[in-house]
Amino acid sequence: MRSRANNKFLPKDPDYQDRVSESFELQRIMHTIGASLSCCQPGHVRITLPYHEKLCQQHGFIHGGIVATILDSACGYAAFSLMPADAEVLSIEFKTNLLAPAKGDVFHAEGEVVKTGRTISVAEACLYAVEKEQEKLIATMNCTLMSVYHHQPRG
Amino acid sequence: MRSRANNKFLPKDPDYQDRVSESFELQRIMHTIGASLSCCQPGHVRITLPYHEKLCQQHGFIHGGIVATILDSACGYAAFSLMPADAEVLSIEFKTNLLAPAKGDVFHAEGEVVKTGRTISVAEACLYAVEKEQEKLIATMNCTLMSVYHHQPRG
Amino acid sequence: MRSRANNKFLPKDPDYQDRVSESFELQRIMHTIGASLSCCQPGHVRITLPYHEKLCQQHGFIHGGIVATILDSACGYAAFSLMPADAEVLSIEFKTNLLAPAKGDVFHAEGEVVKTGRTISVAEACLYAVEKEQEKLIATMNCTLMSVYHHQPRG
Amino acid sequence: MRSRANNKFLPKDPDYQDRVSESFELQRIMHTIGASLSCCQPGHVRITLPYHEKLCQQHGFIHGGIVATILDSACGYAAFSLMPADAEVLSIEFKTNLLAPAKGDVFHAEGEVVKTGRTISVAEACLYAVEKEQEKLIATMNCTLMSVYHHQPRG
Repeated sequence: MRSRANNKFLPKDPDYQDRVSESFELQRIMHTIGASLSCCQPGHVRITLPYHEKLCQQHGFIHGGIVATILDSACGYAAFSLMPADAEVLSIEFKTNLLAPAKGDVFHAEGEVVKTGRTISVAEACLYAVEKEQEKLIATMNCTLMSVYHHQPRG
Repeated sequence: MRSRANNKFLPKDPDYQDRVSESFELQRIMHTIGASLSCCQPGHVRITLPYHEKLCQQHGFIHGGIVATILDSACGYAAFSLMPADAEVLSIEFKTNLLAPAKGDVFHAEGEVVKTGRTISVAEACLYAVEKEQEKLIATMNCTLMSVYHHQPRG
Repeated sequence: MRSRANNKFLPKDPDYQDRVSESFELQRIMHTIGASLSCCQPGHVRITLPYHEKLCQQHGFIHGGIVATILDSACGYAAFSLMPADAEVLSIEFKTNLLAPAKGDVFHAEGEVVKTGRTISVAEACLYAVEKEQEKLIATMNCTLMSVYHHQPRG
Repeated sequence: MRSRANNKFLPKDPDYQDRVSESFELQRIMHTIGASLSCCQPGHVRITLPYHEKLCQQHGFIHGGIVATILDSACGYAAFSLMPADAEVLSIEFKTNLLAPAKGDVFHAEGEVVKTGRTISVAEACLYAVEKEQEKLIATMNCTLMSVYHHQPRG
């Protein structure tokens, strides 16, 4: 698995893991598609999604928008894990490259923070498909996120 | 509603509407999220999605990845409507800007072709939220697509 | 010429045109490449660049990065034209699609604001090449910008 | 310096270095801005640019479009280094994140291939600023490229 960043980050909130998993549980879409949070470290999050036909496009591969759904949450929670306890996270834009058809038994979205700032953070994520114990990079995302502090007007 | 393009396109395949709606019906994910194809013209497609809690992120808005799902299909079918009968369409990358929270009663993704080529097409889409009969632009997508011809090796 | 937006914007600063043209004059790169500010209205800016060999890539077309240079400034000043007098503008990311080779006698980058917010704005731009009095769309940009207020820490 | 990819690539053309440096020399814009090719390996290219006031925006930092210029060429030549001898390379789109102001004595754009295909390749690049012997990541690019074979119609 390629390492996107050698960055080491220190969390501002010691309870970052609880904060991430509580927020993840509130994402109803993750239940709908069957995704789970499988790893959470400072500045790094993994989301795992088993293959299911109900998530597919016309050729039987996972739809690019569902690929983006787990990549976006992986980026968002990677950034959120480094934010102070009074901050919310908001994706303002993302770009996805679909490198190969999303076929496989299970998919892992690995999100990592590239830059963290008071207002703007940038994260990247890779999607790996696992089929017959072989892992393959099939999509990437680059995402810009915004920290919103409680009582602060929206961007 | 802003007009993204004044382009007029002629379809290469007179049966483009059947081809688009048959392919759309094969996208299982569209049934899963409750989206339907509500308009199809040469180089222009509209996809409509009613609000549902099961599609939401942690704040009760439609998840950005689901926003991307209908924008991507709107771009893809806008491009597909102009392709010859022996071509398949494949998104190779897309970029989404999330301009405002995706709240509303119903959402319309309007996809339009910017450029069409033998191999590469470019399309754009806007997502409008409708709430209390007010329409608001809440997201945009810019998408690069590839035509794949039957029997041709993949890119 | 396609109209990207029907938005009408009111400038917060009545002296917006002076502010834009003064800032443009400070962009040394615009002198270096020979670009000029040819139109400035609220939320809309045009930058004009004559063809020159010194700006070209290996096939004699204007390099994609120079295309991005004038598109980025067109987006930035379109957003800047709507900002209050104490704000600076900063591009945080942009995406460019290169639709056709950048050949022609002169190029016009048309930037328009899609969304304006206190912190985050989004603008889009189109690049038109003019050759033998024919105008052709050859590139697009989608750009996210940040307002930085004097004495405020950077994002 | 972070490693973006652990990929190992084998060049299809043993003379790839000559082909890359000859093409680079034909990019007149590289001479205009003072950039040079400082490293070329299979799937990896570095372009070096010393700071110069003539390349700056209004605050005295290198303009984002010039940042994109060397990142785009770094991506393009990284992809080109892996192509067969009868192929040309063309950027079809790129996305740049500007993480920090482009100030420094000298800048290194490191381009690496993420995926290589017969028609479509994807590359990424990082821009590092060097100031007082300290290196800092200040921008990233993600770029989609197309191989064009001689005598083949354009995309």
